[in-house]
Parts: sequence; structure tokens; C-alpha cells
Amino acid sequence: MERIRTSELPQHAGQQVLLRGWLHHRRLLSQVSFLVLRDAWGTCQVVSTPNASGIDDLTPESAIEVDGLAVAEPRAPGGVEVREATVRVLSSAAAGLPFDLFRPTIDAALPTLLDHAAVSLRHPRRRAAFQLMDATAAAFRAALRERRFTEVFTPKIVATATESGANCFHLDYFGQPAYLAQSPQLYKQMLVGAFERVFEVAPVFRAEPHDTPRHLNEYVSLDAEMGFITDHHDVMALLGQVTSAMAGAVSEHAAAAHAGARLPIAVPIAFPKLHFTEALDLLTGEFGTEVLAEPDLAPSHERWLGEWALRTHSSDFLFVVGFPMTKRPFYTHPDPARPAYSNSFDLLFRGLELATGGQRLHRYEDYETAMRARQIDPAPFSGYLEAFRYGMPAHGGFAIGIERWVQQVIGASNLRETTLFPRDLNRILP
Amino acid sequence: MERIRTSELPQHAGQQVLLRGWLHHRRLLSQVSFLVLRDAWGTCQVVSTPNASGIDDLTPESAIEVDGLAVAEPRAPGGVEVREATVRVLSSAAAGLPFDLFRPTIDAALPTLLDHAAVSLRHPRRRAAFQLMDATAAAFRAALRERRFTEVFTPKIVATATESGANCFHLDYFGQPAYLAQSPQLYKQMLVGAFERVFEVAPVFRAEPHDTPRHLNEYVSLDAEMGFITDHHDVMALLGQVTSAMAGAVSEHAAAAHAGARLPIAVPIAFPKLHFTEALDLLTGEFGTEVLAEPDLAPSHERWLGEWALRTHSSDFLFVVGFPMTKRPFYTHPDPARPAYSNSFDLLFRGLELATGGQRLHRYEDYETAMRARQIDPAPFSGYLEAFRYGMPAHGGFAIGIERWVQQVIGASNLRETTLFPRDLNRILP
Repeated sequence: MERIRTSELPQHAGQQVLLRGWLHHRRLLSQVSFLVLRDAWGTCQVVSTPNASGIDDLTPESAIEVDGLAVAEPRAPGGVEVREATVRVLSSAAAGLPFDLFRPTIDAALPTLLDHAAVSLRHPRRRAAFQLMDATAAAFRAALRERRFTEVFTPKIVATATESGANCFHLDYFGQPAYLAQSPQLYKQMLVGAFERVFEVAPVFRAEPHDTPRHLNEYVSLDAEMGFITDHHDVMALLGQVTSAMAGAVSEHAAAAHAGARLPIAVPIAFPKLHFTEALDLLTGEFGTEVLAEPDLAPSHERWLGEWALRTHSSDFLFVVGFPMTKRPFYTHPDPARPAYSNSFDLLFRGLELATGGQRLHRYEDYETAMRARQIDPAPFSGYLEAFRYGMPAHGGFAIGIERWVQQVIGASNLRETTLFPRDLNRILP
Repeated sequence: MERIRTSELPQHAGQQVLLRGWLHHRRLLSQVSFLVLRDAWGTCQVVSTPNASGIDDLTPESAIEVDGLAVAEPRAPGGVEVREATVRVLSSAAAGLPFDLFRPTIDAALPTLLDHAAVSLRHPRRRAAFQLMDATAAAFRAALRERRFTEVFTPKIVATATESGANCFHLDYFGQPAYLAQSPQLYKQMLVGAFERVFEVAPVFRAEPHDTPRHLNEYVSLDAEMGFITDHHDVMALLGQVTSAMAGAVSEHAAAAHAGARLPIAVPIAFPKLHFTEALDLLTGEFGTEVLAEPDLAPSHERWLGEWALRTHSSDFLFVVGFPMTKRPFYTHPDPARPAYSNSFDLLFRGLELATGGQRLHRYEDYETAMRARQIDPAPFSGYLEAFRYGMPAHGGFAIGIERWVQQVIGASNLRETTLFPRDLNRILP
């Protein structure tokens, strides 16, 4: 008999079925035993007689195989249960789980969940968040592939820091100094010359010594870069299409309910845009002139702007455009009309910075000038700069943090909840 | 007017068209100028009058925009050319390319190609190899997604070496020692407990001090792991299906011809299998008893076995099954019938090790025993071992090196030819 998934059970009512999974829960009554079998796709109720083949001794989380008759039963979760069941233990679990998995949520603090990731990730709610992540990555790639983007794989061991030497992890590379890539930025730009449109889904590494719910030292970046643009508005249009596709994918995913996704995601046809200076004006009205102290947005400002976008534009998304050049890296293209501001943007999603992007410089001379102004030695960047020496079109791109996306979709308060095995200042295990 | 791609030109014969790309080549005759515009999808011939709008001064690789009339012309490559063309320069290339890009192949040594990756990757033949890589990754994911695998993202900064402390890159992680992950092995096993079937496409890092055409220190691993198997034959069946899907995808890809792919790939319904001891018998017949010196296969042995598989089974693929336990890592499941041999395998593709995989131990006690026998301290592995303490089914998986796949598809002699920015003992730039 071929094994079926719990999610397929309703189609098999009236038939003998074979299921495999884990013992999620068990209730032993005097006349009957109710087991709940959990597989990666759901759970199902299994009815057996007490004392049948060692069911009484079964420990929770044991891997089991069940065969029996699928029977429509309105009182069973899902409407179908398995009766006259035979249960075989495939792999026995030790007694004493660090926490119960059968309750709607795990009753333990976040550090405990993370320490015991091998167990906590089995919980349907925890697991579902990462099934949404899987659906997100698939939607990201599909949206770009449809638009003729090529997937690329760029090195994570690099000789030059992308943005600056600060916040880089250092590495001994056969006696030479090396870094872990903070982003694929330089490579994806070089590859625009070959492929015109590229994307990458890969880890990035930031040695930022911040211990906040918003920062991790390793995360997955969804990167894209495209050539032959007019300016950053072409990039924002693309990012709008891509995030809309991601929103569609998670909304339609069966895991969304399990993960507690906050649906629907408010996705307008065109995402609202605020220039950085307009955002400051709004924020000054709300918070006073203290917001002008830094040429950037604080988390509380982003939250307020997110609420503003929802209130005034019925949108969970908001572009903040034209950040000051002083806060952006050397490859940033200035706004030709207001050179103190840049052709760059952040995309806020429900009040959190989800993505950053913009138009990049594309003329070799502009790079020379920008690097000189910032006192960056161009020598280690020669392989990168060669791309601009030989005919690079106007181009730009963006990077999305996938963990932040899932965090905001499900309304988690800490990025560590939507990272399988987070890395932070104090955590490198498991 | 909306820009079209060169590959779309035949559908637009008789119409005004707009194209964007790079000046691939130029021939100036007395009465007429022939330009070749290259975009990411092909090339097209553009006919213009001499001295028109600065065409004479155009440098190769300048980014250009062309509009004109698409005209069917049997003598033009592709059967359609653009006439009465207006050419606008979007971004001028400097004179003096490191090598010509318009010839069928680049006339330069591999180190030169790699030093000038930003230029050499623009060559249609070089570029096409990576378009095949993109198609491969997409086919890998699609084949697994179809079979209900979940894509996962595991950390690359780790506290414990996967296989052994040797050949690990060391890292300073906020004052703590850390490593770069040699593989997602331990994580994908832990995740079988949550998702049953997982895959990952991500970089892996090997500090092997080998300077050979077969080794790189960073590469992209296509990993999969599945639970509830009977033994490694289930894993091999899956790997056969996945590589068959990959072969189909590259065979059908337009880039295959450009990349010089050796097609068709000989894909039998069932891949031939040889037990390690049978392979040794065959090799002893060919090479003499020297093959018995090492409990592993040398590259020349793999090549010979590849030829044997093609000759006797009309297959570009060959499984070698049951490697000695001594050559396999601690998590390897022994063959219950012959415990000196393992339930593991290599998949040879055209005589090169493409993938490695097998069944893993799944009982906690078996891990205790295996680690004790190999004198591995279990303490740093406690988060991993917890997965086996609480009901882990029989499981296994495999890892494919994507660069090796493309190498063998196109018949490249060096893995560096099928890596965008290779990392080896002597190369960390660009």
C-alpha cells in the first residue's frame, strides 16, 4: 500500500490507508485510544483499541506508521479519521521532551525554543512559518524568472568589503585576509554586464554588534539587479511586482493559517511613495524636530510611517525614496535634480524596513570621483570597476530580507522566530 | 516603443523595433556599416549607413540602443536584421578590451579570463554555461518541490565542523571560534524531523589545500534529505529522478548550443549501480591490484567506470554503492548485511563524482556508539543529537555539486570554467 499524507486523507474516505509521521498526541480512554499522527503536512486522528500493540507505551514524538480504514467522522478534526488502526513504531522517542508540542503554541521562552530547535521546529505553528518562507522564495524566483532574470551564484568569501571594512567578519584564507560577503552587491552589478538581469538567493553576513529583535548576523538576502533602466523608479516598479507576487503566494499557502499569518496583506496596485524629505515633514509633525537629528529613519519612525500608509493609502507597503547621499554607499546614484539626495529607496512593509535598493552609478569616472570623495582606495576594487570601464548601462536593484518578510507576515516580534537557526551576538548553536 | 529582446526579432519582421544591448562587433564597409548588437539573449545584425551618428567612433562593448526596421534577410544570422537603424550610445566603453569578445571563443588563458571576469562573462559562450546553471538550479528545485520537499535556509557560520576539524575555514565570531559550514548535513537531518523532506541550494566551504582542476574552496551544493525511507536505494531513486530532470532542462535550454553542451545526455530509465567491491573487481581487471591500495576511487578509476557505464549500459550516470565505512563520516549508516560497508553511494556523471549521498544513522544510541568509536566529543553536537533522541525516522539524502554538473554537461576541463568567480588556493579576486 502506498503511503498517503495526512492532507490527502479526505480523498481516501472509505479506503484502507497507510500513514507515516510522528505521535503528536495521545488520549487513552477506557474503551478506546485516540492518537494524533502528525506528518509534515498536517495531523489526523487515529482510533485504536486500548492495549493494542504497545500503544500505551508510546512516547510522544515517536516516529510511527499507521494503517487502517479512513472513515468520514464529522467530530474528527478534518472530517476523516483512521479506524481499526494498526500502529507500528519506527523510531521510539525518549521520554521527557523539553516542552509539549501538542498544544496550540509552545509554552517556553524564545531562547529555550532556539536551544531546542530540533524539537521546537516540529511544532505545526513554528514549522508553518518556514513553509511560508519556502513559498516566498519560490514566488520571488518565479516572478523574476518570468521577467527573464538569470539566477546567479556569487562568492561569499571575498577580498574586499562591500560597503566598508566595519561590520565584516574576518577570515583566514590560506594565510590571506578575507571577509564574508555583506551582500552580493558588487558581483550582481558586474553580472548586469553579462546577463542584464540577475537575481540571487543566498546568505549574507553582518558583524554588527547589535543585540536587538531586528538584527541578525547572518540572514538570507533576496537580491536582484537589472540593466537599461531609466532610474530607480523602474527598480521600484519591479520590487512592487515581486513583493505583490510574494504576498499572493503566502496568502494562498495552506500554512498561512497555522503560522498565524496576518491576512490579507494590503497590496495596492501602485505602492505609495514618499520622498525622504516628505517623510521627515510628516514625522516632524508627529514627533517634533528631533527626527531631523539623524539623516535616517528610526524604527519608531518607520512604524509610524507604516501606520500612515495603511491609514491614508490602504497599503501595507510604503516606499521612502531619496535618502541623503551621506547615508548611502559609494555606488549610489545621486538624484540629478537634488544631488544631496540619492536615487535610492527603502521599502517599508507594515512599518519595518523590508528592502533597500536604488539606482547605481554606471560610469567609470563617476566611480573614480565617488571613491576619491569617500577616501576609498580603488585598487582592491579593480575587478569590479572593470565592469564600468567597458560599457555598463544605467542599472539598479534591491535586496529583501526574507526573515523580515516572514516576521511581518505572521506578526512575530523577533526576527529570531522566523530564522531556522539564528546567529546573533550570543548565539552560534545549534 | 517597447524594447524587444534579440531573440524576439524574428516575430517582428516588417515592424519598427527598439533594441538595447552592447556593441558586440562592427564592420564598416564603404557603402554600409554592419553592427552586431548583443543582449543577454542573443545577437542581431544592424545595418546603417557609414558616418551615421557617430557609429564610426563606437567602441566595442559600448552599451547602445538601436531602433530601426526589422527586415527578413536570409543572409543575416537569425534570418532577420535591423535596417535604417538609428544608434544611440548609452554608455561608452573604454578602448582596449583585455581580449576580443566577438570571436567564437575568447583567445586567452583561463587565469586571464578569470582575472577579467567582468568582461569575459559577457562572451556568449561563457555566459551560456551559467544560463545552463540557472536552468539546472530551477529544475532541481522544481523536481523536489513536486515531490513535496520544503526549501530551507541553514546557517553557514557554525560552531562545529560537520565532518572533521580539518579542511574548515576558521572565523572569529565576536571573539568565539567558529567555522564556515562544509555542508548543511547536520541541519538538513535535524529538519527531517520537522519537514520530513527538505532541500537547500547554498554555498559550502572547504579549506582543502588542493590545487587541481577538480577542487574549489567554495562551491554551490544542491542538497536534499528525506525521511521514512527503507534504505539508501530510496535516496538513489530520488537522485535519479532529480538528475534526469536536470538533464532534461539543460537539453531543452536555448543556451545549450552556445555553451557547447555535449548532448544528448545519456539518461537511462534506471541508472546502473555497481557495489564498491564490484567496481574494484572491474578496476582490478583493468588497472591491476594497485586499485586495492586505497578504500576509495581515484579520478582515473572514476573516468574508466564512466566509460564502462556508457559502453555497457548506454548511461552517462553510474551509481557506485557501498563504500567502506572507514571512508565515510560518522553519521553514515552501515550495510546491515556487511557492516564494513556502508549504505552510501557516489553518483558518477560522465566519469566524475557528481553527487554523494546515503542513508544516515537515525537512532540516538547508534550516534553515541559511532562517535565514541571515532573519538568525537558529542558535547558540541548536543543540539544535533537531540533530533535523534526524539523519534527520527530512517532517512537519507544527497548533495550535488552544481559547478561539476555544468562542467560535465559542456565538457569543460576545469571546474573554474563553470564557476562565476572561483575561489581557490591562489584566487580570491575578483
